[in-house]
Amino acid sequence: MRLLGLDPGLRATGWGIIDVRGNHLTFVAAGTIHSAAHQSLAARLSVIYSELIAVIDSYKPDEAAVEETFLNRNPVSTLKLGQARGVVLLAPAQAGLAVAEYAATTIKKAIVGTGHADKIQIQSMVSRLLPGALAHSPDAADALAIAICHAHYAGSAQRTIAALKAEVR
Amino acid sequence: MRLLGLDPGLRATGWGIIDVRGNHLTFVAAGTIHSAAHQSLAARLSVIYSELIAVIDSYKPDEAAVEETFLNRNPVSTLKLGQARGVVLLAPAQAGLAVAEYAATTIKKAIVGTGHADKIQIQSMVSRLLPGALAHSPDAADALAIAICHAHYAGSAQRTIAALKAEVR
Repeated sequence: MRLLGLDPGLRATGWGIIDVRGNHLTFVAAGTIHSAAHQSLAARLSVIYSELIAVIDSYKPDEAAVEETFLNRNPVSTLKLGQARGVVLLAPAQAGLAVAEYAATTIKKAIVGTGHADKIQIQSMVSRLLPGALAHSPDAADALAIAICHAHYAGSAQRTIAALKAEVR
Repeated sequence: MRLLGLDPGLRATGWGIIDVRGNHLTFVAAGTIHSAAHQSLAARLSVIYSELIAVIDSYKPDEAAVEETFLNRNPVSTLKLGQARGVVLLAPAQAGLAVAEYAATTIKKAIVGTGHADKIQIQSMVSRLLPGALAHSPDAADALAIAICHAHYAGSAQRTIAALKAEVR
């Protein structure tokens, strides 16, 4: 199964793709989409959407996962992030993928084992869990962490279902 | 010139289309896109986007205008609206239309003459300015108000440019 992790932001949106076979994870690709502050909001959202659709077309992931948004104290920042996040959720949905959402603490717990890990710990664990991962930016590393988190929970759910089916038989 | 006005919301997004010839405005169509609360956020955003793209394909407007978002005191509401608004700005941008944004007070001033008009005053002026307008919902009426506001300002800008050009000659 191929998973796409997404870390939304108006200025920079991170994306990361991994392959999952049982408990084995493989790094496929990662990157960051930048939008230029001098462009109109609609044009910036259009850049994020078009580049995400191109990533999905190139790597053909089976499922996507997006970080739940941290509610900034500044409502203007919350609105900006919300607008970018809407477009980031839309792209995989329009491509027909199921889109999971995870809270930041759930992602940290899945990667580092505690909900209070910092960015450096996340990045170091991501490169340990995905040998050879080329995460050129913190946003791409976060996106890979989200994909790993989804592999963890989606995998657990599948194993639970498999175990329940085995019990029933 | 054909203008599309958009009033974004996750539960209900209003749209309204008018034709503008000089100072003459004609109602073309209006409606409301609903998304079901029981669906996932990604699925709801996908419904809004797909229906907006269908409206744009059917009526082929030349330009679009969207209301600037009121910053709710509740950050969860601001985030929800932001996500819907991102998708509502994206649809016309992806269709190649220029997308203008207007503050609520600017729209009210263009329609009623004061920035403090209520919903009923807006609706009553919209049906007076667009005889025969079928705005089935307050969201559709708001969307028509946004289109009228854009006609007013875009028209003024064009008249100003025409006047300046005439002076230069």
